[in-house]
Amino acid sequence: MKYIIEISYDGRNYSGWQVQPNKNTIQKNIEDVLFQVLKERVEVVASGRTDAGVSAIKQVAHFETEQEITNHFVSYCNHLLPEDIRILSVNKAENSFNARYCAKRKTYRYNFYISNINIPVYDYFALKLPTTVNLEIVKKELSKIVGEHDFSAFCAANTEVKNKTRIIYSAELLKCGDIYCLEICGNGFLYNMVRIIAGTIFDIARGKLKLDINEIIKSLDRSKAGKTASSVGLLLYNVEY
Amino acid sequence: MKYIIEISYDGRNYSGWQVQPNKNTIQKNIEDVLFQVLKERVEVVASGRTDAGVSAIKQVAHFETEQEITNHFVSYCNHLLPEDIRILSVNKAENSFNARYCAKRKTYRYNFYISNINIPVYDYFALKLPTTVNLEIVKKELSKIVGEHDFSAFCAANTEVKNKTRIIYSAELLKCGDIYCLEICGNGFLYNMVRIIAGTIFDIARGKLKLDINEIIKSLDRSKAGKTASSVGLLLYNVEY
Repeated sequence: MKYIIEISYDGRNYSGWQVQPNKNTIQKNIEDVLFQVLKERVEVVASGRTDAGVSAIKQVAHFETEQEITNHFVSYCNHLLPEDIRILSVNKAENSFNARYCAKRKTYRYNFYISNINIPVYDYFALKLPTTVNLEIVKKELSKIVGEHDFSAFCAANTEVKNKTRIIYSAELLKCGDIYCLEICGNGFLYNMVRIIAGTIFDIARGKLKLDINEIIKSLDRSKAGKTASSVGLLLYNVEY
Repeated sequence: MKYIIEISYDGRNYSGWQVQPNKNTIQKNIEDVLFQVLKERVEVVASGRTDAGVSAIKQVAHFETEQEITNHFVSYCNHLLPEDIRILSVNKAENSFNARYCAKRKTYRYNFYISNINIPVYDYFALKLPTTVNLEIVKKELSKIVGEHDFSAFCAANTEVKNKTRIIYSAELLKCGDIYCLEICGNGFLYNMVRIIAGTIFDIARGKLKLDINEIIKSLDRSKAGKTASSVGLLLYNVEY
């Protein structure tokens, strides 16, 4: 039987989602706890990997087992998991369900605040940008990523994926008190894509980069884009099927 | 000469603002750094103490020295301070200025979110409340604290202050994405007052407490109010003079 599992985590203390030798990852912690509870090894396949330090409000994954999952399963697993990883729900899924390939829309948020001196409370989940950042430019450049584009220029150089075309359904600048956020929803994201988009837009909005987003998309050239923004501001916010 | 100093801190790793023997406090860290820089011991007097674990976006304090403070003073101090404490500014003040007695308005925020399972990213700065909380009741009860009242019922039992009358200028329920916040602005606050107000309102809104805020204020009796809400959600947001 296939199960769909929703997970929330604070990724700061982990080397990302994916199991890697000798690293403490989210996937490892969840698979180890499922082994303790189910007494069998299952692979937990997520909608996509998150990088080292990146958190998720809602990540979605699937696993297979012939065992029947009981009502107490979620609270029992959460009791065994470290406090910064929580299982939100586990439900039966169709046999054809695959958390990675069936994901229709993913939403990421990149949080930042504007100040010339660090605000320690905000540093926990948002990137500090200097007061020279022009928010009108952030808004304008952000809107240019919406649509279907080859995002080769916004993909980490060492990636193996061949098709780098993705559809961005929406990209908005939100403001909550002192915290701003780039909320980007698309059908999928390349490795480091949101962080490179954020870093590039911030560089343009500070006058450090002369090209605009359209020109950089067209170039298909990673070296034309800005730097990869720190993982501190990035949050996987939602995955929809 | 008197100087006014603005400070921002993440209070999670500290035993509150005030210097105490063998405790790591915000005041101690700032006074130690000022000693390193000024080569003299100065006392840093804040607008008010914050409890263990409580953070501040902006705390205001004063200190006295005959030395002239130079332009590089702030960045030099910040270089010496731990990363979770930042000095935002230092400016000359009138001789009559006193950060504690001259404060006209203080604004606190109490952050919470509603979920039956913990969201680790939110646990860092907000209290989890169960889905049984009625937000309309939160809003209604919160509005009842506005005005001039004797807040004896909302003051930690072991306090020494005699006059427990304070004016609350505004009290609003704000919402930012999934995060709610009680924003309370007043001319001053008693020990634990915001946390007891928050805990009491949450208890009423969950049906765990039958009295309303007006009745509890009138009682002048701490035992009629709800429990002191965790420090995790509390933030000193602003101090005005």
